[in-house]
Amino acid sequence: MSSSPKGPTRVSAQTLNAFSQALFVAKGVSSEHAQTMANALTWADLRGVDTHGISRIPMYFRLLDSKEMNATPNLHVLKETLALTVLEADRCAGPVAMHEASDMAMKKAKLTGMGLVMVRNTTHTASLGIYSEKVAQSGMACIALAASRPNMGYYGAKAAGVSTAPFSMAVPGPKGQAIILDMASGIVSLGKLAQLKANNEALEPGWALDAQGNETIDPQKASIPLPLGGPKGSGLSLMFELMASLPVLNPLIGHFFSDKEDAQRHCQNAWIIAIDIAQVCPEASFYNEMENTIKALKALPVEQRVGTEILMPGERGYKERHLREQQGVPIPAKMQATLTELALKYKVASPF
Amino acid sequence: MSSSPKGPTRVSAQTLNAFSQALFVAKGVSSEHAQTMANALTWADLRGVDTHGISRIPMYFRLLDSKEMNATPNLHVLKETLALTVLEADRCAGPVAMHEASDMAMKKAKLTGMGLVMVRNTTHTASLGIYSEKVAQSGMACIALAASRPNMGYYGAKAAGVSTAPFSMAVPGPKGQAIILDMASGIVSLGKLAQLKANNEALEPGWALDAQGNETIDPQKASIPLPLGGPKGSGLSLMFELMASLPVLNPLIGHFFSDKEDAQRHCQNAWIIAIDIAQVCPEASFYNEMENTIKALKALPVEQRVGTEILMPGERGYKERHLREQQGVPIPAKMQATLTELALKYKVASPF
Repeated sequence: MSSSPKGPTRVSAQTLNAFSQALFVAKGVSSEHAQTMANALTWADLRGVDTHGISRIPMYFRLLDSKEMNATPNLHVLKETLALTVLEADRCAGPVAMHEASDMAMKKAKLTGMGLVMVRNTTHTASLGIYSEKVAQSGMACIALAASRPNMGYYGAKAAGVSTAPFSMAVPGPKGQAIILDMASGIVSLGKLAQLKANNEALEPGWALDAQGNETIDPQKASIPLPLGGPKGSGLSLMFELMASLPVLNPLIGHFFSDKEDAQRHCQNAWIIAIDIAQVCPEASFYNEMENTIKALKALPVEQRVGTEILMPGERGYKERHLREQQGVPIPAKMQATLTELALKYKVASPF
Repeated sequence: MSSSPKGPTRVSAQTLNAFSQALFVAKGVSSEHAQTMANALTWADLRGVDTHGISRIPMYFRLLDSKEMNATPNLHVLKETLALTVLEADRCAGPVAMHEASDMAMKKAKLTGMGLVMVRNTTHTASLGIYSEKVAQSGMACIALAASRPNMGYYGAKAAGVSTAPFSMAVPGPKGQAIILDMASGIVSLGKLAQLKANNEALEPGWALDAQGNETIDPQKASIPLPLGGPKGSGLSLMFELMASLPVLNPLIGHFFSDKEDAQRHCQNAWIIAIDIAQVCPEASFYNEMENTIKALKALPVEQRVGTEILMPGERGYKERHLREQQGVPIPAKMQATLTELALKYKVASPF
């Protein structure tokens, strides 16, 4: 652990993981679920996805307080066919549902070649890459997506209509590193908008709308991120809703705009698909072609304005993980204070 | 049919379809395959996707001449599991492979809930929306993607490394109109670059590289489109290659950058996934939620700079189809001349 006045403190992932677990257990979550949740947050912190790491704990606590997240859920299978399962998540923490769902999808895939688990009625999914990496590390290909309530502009509208819904694809990669694409359907994240606001830095044109639905570059006014590539990003997000929310009869967009009392509730649905590529081709041949492909791309002339080398999807995260496993995860002073306050309230020892 | 000097002539879709079929048959394609190919091109022409309609016939003829496309293919199943099939397309015309593959995926889905067909060694896939719409019109959800040889910049590189690979998702919709997302992974299409070049109109910054790999807005120099959202678009395209090309051991990127004699050959691989949502929920409930969702989005305040109403993915195509079914498909004078020349050569009556 190292620190400087008002600067971030570096804390080991093990310490953060144990601290997160203890907090969730103190809040009434089972130790098994608390471990799954802590693992998901630490995964993001190690890979440099700070917006999806332990910085989410206060939000999870708020959701547990409001009962939008269920500390003692009853996960159960609603429907099952040979290749497809509908898992009722009972408003559990997203990582608990997705951890279970990815195992179920892989089990199906072993039997039939491919398995899809439709996760119904879950909460904040955290980074989809956690689960798609897990599937890929097991030798399978993965497609995952999640649907959430509207917070992003719909193309052609002056208001939020869809969410900054995430999409992930992953395949096994060489040297134990999966190739992991993990992207949102927005052109800019809510986290980035918050950061620009804090620093009072102007947005790029076309990034966001203000509360009245007008495009703005004013960081103090920007509140609704715009979709990636206009109709492409909002189309992707809408398709995730139509596929992940409608067949399981848990609509998020329709509900949000309804006059129901809980219209503003937090709720998500998700899909995870596992494809057992070992049933299609020998592992060694797959890795051989993979290495040729990566080698060809890495040999392209580098655009120095972007970086010093050409990276595969997810590779930056592995580099950051390597670094942070050695040096610890930097936790900003403000986040330390917030989490220490929570720790005091729930009688858990704070590492800060 | 109507015409004006040097302007486009409007020709009925039936006429274009019969003309295309006759041309393909004259080139040695079976009448069944010729019909499938003509249907695919006419589908795009009717929906206003002029870059993927009969304007592609000269390209198909070049590919047939060079034997990169096989006029008399032997499509056959290479591998099969309960939910997954690898279809060897034997370099057939893309629409022939995808038509067959979508039927196979739906048949699997009826049995297991979900079916994936990996199409190996196909050629120009045409619009993915043709096949995803077909699956959706049969009451199933669809995910489709295709991999092709590099023609688009890879994020962080000063050269083409991946392709402007397409992705499509579709679900059944109300009133017989599917909801169809059909998008490329590039920020701008090659067709749009060609159009800007013809009109000598400047590009938007960040749209393309010149042959030396430098960003340019000069329409005469722009030759390599850039990916949608930087690492997101090039990541999507690369993942399609890793998923659709590698497991079937028909790598396109690795091959393109190899020193093999046919490194520059035209070749594609594709995936089509069908999900039988009727096994998950009653059709009436699904349509009910769908209508609520569409109604909520269409009620949002309209951004007048974009249009006069809020559209669902694929809706613009249905509107255009309705119009063109009545008024015919506009065929530019230059395209008429090119196709008439081809018709003369192959002794087929030209409709122009």
